[in-house]
Amino acid sequence: MASKPSIPQGTRDFSPAEVSKRQYIIQTIKTNFEKFGFQPIETPSFENSDTLMGKYGEEGDRLIFKILNSGNFFFNKNKIELPESIESLQVNSAETIDLSQRIELNKFTGRISEKALRYDLTVPFARYVVQHQNEIEFPFKRYQIQPVWRADRPQRGRYREFYQCDADVVGSKSLWQEVELVQLYDTVFTSLGLEGVTIKINNRKILSGIAEVIGASDKLIDFTVALDKLDKIGEDGVKKEMIEKGISETALVKVQPLFSFSGTFADKINQLSELLASSEEGMKGVEELKFICDNVAVLGLSTAILDLDVTLARGLNYYTGAIFEVGAPKTVSMGSIGGGGRYDDLTGIFGLKNMSGVGISFGLDRIYLVLEELQLFPETVAATSKAIFINYGDKEALYASKAIQKLRQENIKVELYPDNVKVGKQFQYADKRLIPFAVIAGDQEIASNSYALKNLVTGEQVSVDFEGLKKALLG
Amino acid sequence: MASKPSIPQGTRDFSPAEVSKRQYIIQTIKTNFEKFGFQPIETPSFENSDTLMGKYGEEGDRLIFKILNSGNFFFNKNKIELPESIESLQVNSAETIDLSQRIELNKFTGRISEKALRYDLTVPFARYVVQHQNEIEFPFKRYQIQPVWRADRPQRGRYREFYQCDADVVGSKSLWQEVELVQLYDTVFTSLGLEGVTIKINNRKILSGIAEVIGASDKLIDFTVALDKLDKIGEDGVKKEMIEKGISETALVKVQPLFSFSGTFADKINQLSELLASSEEGMKGVEELKFICDNVAVLGLSTAILDLDVTLARGLNYYTGAIFEVGAPKTVSMGSIGGGGRYDDLTGIFGLKNMSGVGISFGLDRIYLVLEELQLFPETVAATSKAIFINYGDKEALYASKAIQKLRQENIKVELYPDNVKVGKQFQYADKRLIPFAVIAGDQEIASNSYALKNLVTGEQVSVDFEGLKKALLG
Repeated sequence: MASKPSIPQGTRDFSPAEVSKRQYIIQTIKTNFEKFGFQPIETPSFENSDTLMGKYGEEGDRLIFKILNSGNFFFNKNKIELPESIESLQVNSAETIDLSQRIELNKFTGRISEKALRYDLTVPFARYVVQHQNEIEFPFKRYQIQPVWRADRPQRGRYREFYQCDADVVGSKSLWQEVELVQLYDTVFTSLGLEGVTIKINNRKILSGIAEVIGASDKLIDFTVALDKLDKIGEDGVKKEMIEKGISETALVKVQPLFSFSGTFADKINQLSELLASSEEGMKGVEELKFICDNVAVLGLSTAILDLDVTLARGLNYYTGAIFEVGAPKTVSMGSIGGGGRYDDLTGIFGLKNMSGVGISFGLDRIYLVLEELQLFPETVAATSKAIFINYGDKEALYASKAIQKLRQENIKVELYPDNVKVGKQFQYADKRLIPFAVIAGDQEIASNSYALKNLVTGEQVSVDFEGLKKALLG
Repeated sequence: MASKPSIPQGTRDFSPAEVSKRQYIIQTIKTNFEKFGFQPIETPSFENSDTLMGKYGEEGDRLIFKILNSGNFFFNKNKIELPESIESLQVNSAETIDLSQRIELNKFTGRISEKALRYDLTVPFARYVVQHQNEIEFPFKRYQIQPVWRADRPQRGRYREFYQCDADVVGSKSLWQEVELVQLYDTVFTSLGLEGVTIKINNRKILSGIAEVIGASDKLIDFTVALDKLDKIGEDGVKKEMIEKGISETALVKVQPLFSFSGTFADKINQLSELLASSEEGMKGVEELKFICDNVAVLGLSTAILDLDVTLARGLNYYTGAIFEVGAPKTVSMGSIGGGGRYDDLTGIFGLKNMSGVGISFGLDRIYLVLEELQLFPETVAATSKAIFINYGDKEALYASKAIQKLRQENIKVELYPDNVKVGKQFQYADKRLIPFAVIAGDQEIASNSYALKNLVTGEQVSVDFEGLKKALLG
């Protein structure tokens, strides 16, 4: 092979330093998930296509990676035949394909591919719950930290393979779950040293209620999509878009309070109660929001701020109750680093009705970037050895290996430079690997059963016996 | 969807108990890898097809899962056209396809698929080393614990998705690595409480030497494939197969010592030295083996047994020096639970010459089965909560939540039953989840700022203040 090997667009190799930092975040999330009573499950990387297709909308279907039936299995169908309309297709992009061709192509794809890579963790979780319903004790608090794959056009910060870290409870409508999920966000980010994150909260019922009282229930999606942009395009922009979508001027007057939505939490609740007085669903949303926020306020958060944000929508069609989104501290410019909410019919798509679910997710890649930018990774995170034993030849290496073996029994990470090469090269290696100590043991040290311990940062060198060596490296 | 959802053949869902046990094994392996100076890397789940195809033989190519170019990307090629010979193909199995059809089909596959799922961790590692050679300090000690996928026909104990746990050193020919890898096996299995594993060791050069001295160098593979079956088909069976493969009766007389190969390590080395005296390569193998075993003997192993096994071959074409295989304790009937060896030209396939590698692998699934059978998983491995707080309504739940919050700050796993349902149902839930304690707090407890702590195993119930609660649950 002549050219240097590469990896597919949108995928990444992770170096030791990167893996260690990612593992540090994952481990912190895991530990706190378990502390809150969540239990881990894992599902296969690929699912039957049936399980995934049609669950994420047309756009989602297109972004699902399909796996070709392989080897002998490719031929298990009686006949493989490309549909005529496709066979003669000469296209450079999907845009030039008409619907009938797309249908034909989907049929063809279905014949050569029966499996697809996981697109998120929620649909596989729903499938898991339905499949294993008789083994599960409900309410089921599960967490899942696994990669997902999306055939999105790669761009900065958007990858084709990335991890999702989800915690969900299924089988309980209790709002105490929402209270605990807010606490869980607070606990995880506090554990990571990331203080001052904002946990934005809203409720789908409030959004529905607003649409209802302004007589735009039929335009709920257009309405919330526009409202969601308040941060980006401002009040005038939002109003313009709403009018374009057919929302009346009268309606806009009614929602005016939303554009100057401020004050204390109690103020906000009062404004909402006034606005939504005539909507039963809206008032239910206010009540839920109040329950969650009141209890969180009594219990208190360590470092996060809970903020009622009526413009928050996040995949509106999905959520039916609370909606969460976590913003990074204001000193960092970064999109949301987490999100979630309640969805009343998680498992209905697989035939199990009346299973309410609520969950949150952590955005590993973005949290990584934030911790990096704010220099919040502990120095101890890297998995480097504490000391390297210089190799002067087999006799010396054996002497070193005896000490190494005993040090490892004390859980101290140490290693022997494997080859008897120039000492300078060995020190250079230690230096580049950021190993803080070198242990030198030649004839003299062997004779006196000692070790020369060199601090590679200060250059200081001392002669120690094994106990001294152990003590120095444990510190 | 009418039918109960399912997962693809050969894949698995893992329940909380299973994930916890798997994580316990992985964590033990990881900790010891790092103690020995190995650093983690991760590579993408899919690679460019070019990277993988042709690296595992024809059979391997067939077992690689290919990913369909998806969405718009499907159409990036100018024209998709099924070759005529395939188009009219009516087949039920691969056997009926002739070579020209296979070539056509492979071409077609190449046009609709450019990516493939990782088949093992070794080829991606080689690709990583070549791609990142300028960022890496050699010798590079890396470990990698990630899933791989193979389109093998699923059967008991053989899955289409499974984890590999590999530690390799690349860029050093030092035999001290082999010494350390034997120690690493011993340390990991000792940490897992799995005593008495056998680490079998052999050397490719010895196998080549034997073939050389009996004048069957051209039949090295046939010879070793037959010898490798000694355990299964016995001396007569092996000899019969060798003769069938064209190995002479005279040759068989010469290798007779291999069939009664026993005694101490020194005895075995003497027998081999005698047999291989005329083969330079064979004697080199004996010397390497002696170096490794002598040094391991001086350093000592905790619980594993190192055993010279001249019949051990394992993917002979791959290894060039030491060959390792780990057998489970004799009380368990199980194939090898680990294996590895040295390969002198790891990265040559990607154009980087003279990079010797040596590594070992742990078989997660089999280790799991062995630990399960011998009941070696620690009881603490499951991630269950220590206590559940019974839910008597919102006022009581808030009182409980205050205690829960403080207990979690002490890293105690506790949870609130989310719904105010019948107490019996809540206790039943705790019981099925194997949660050992329930905390009961109603009006009376709130009034006296106390908690009733019920041991769900003994049934014993005591009244405690918060400090008492904490103390009991920390124990």
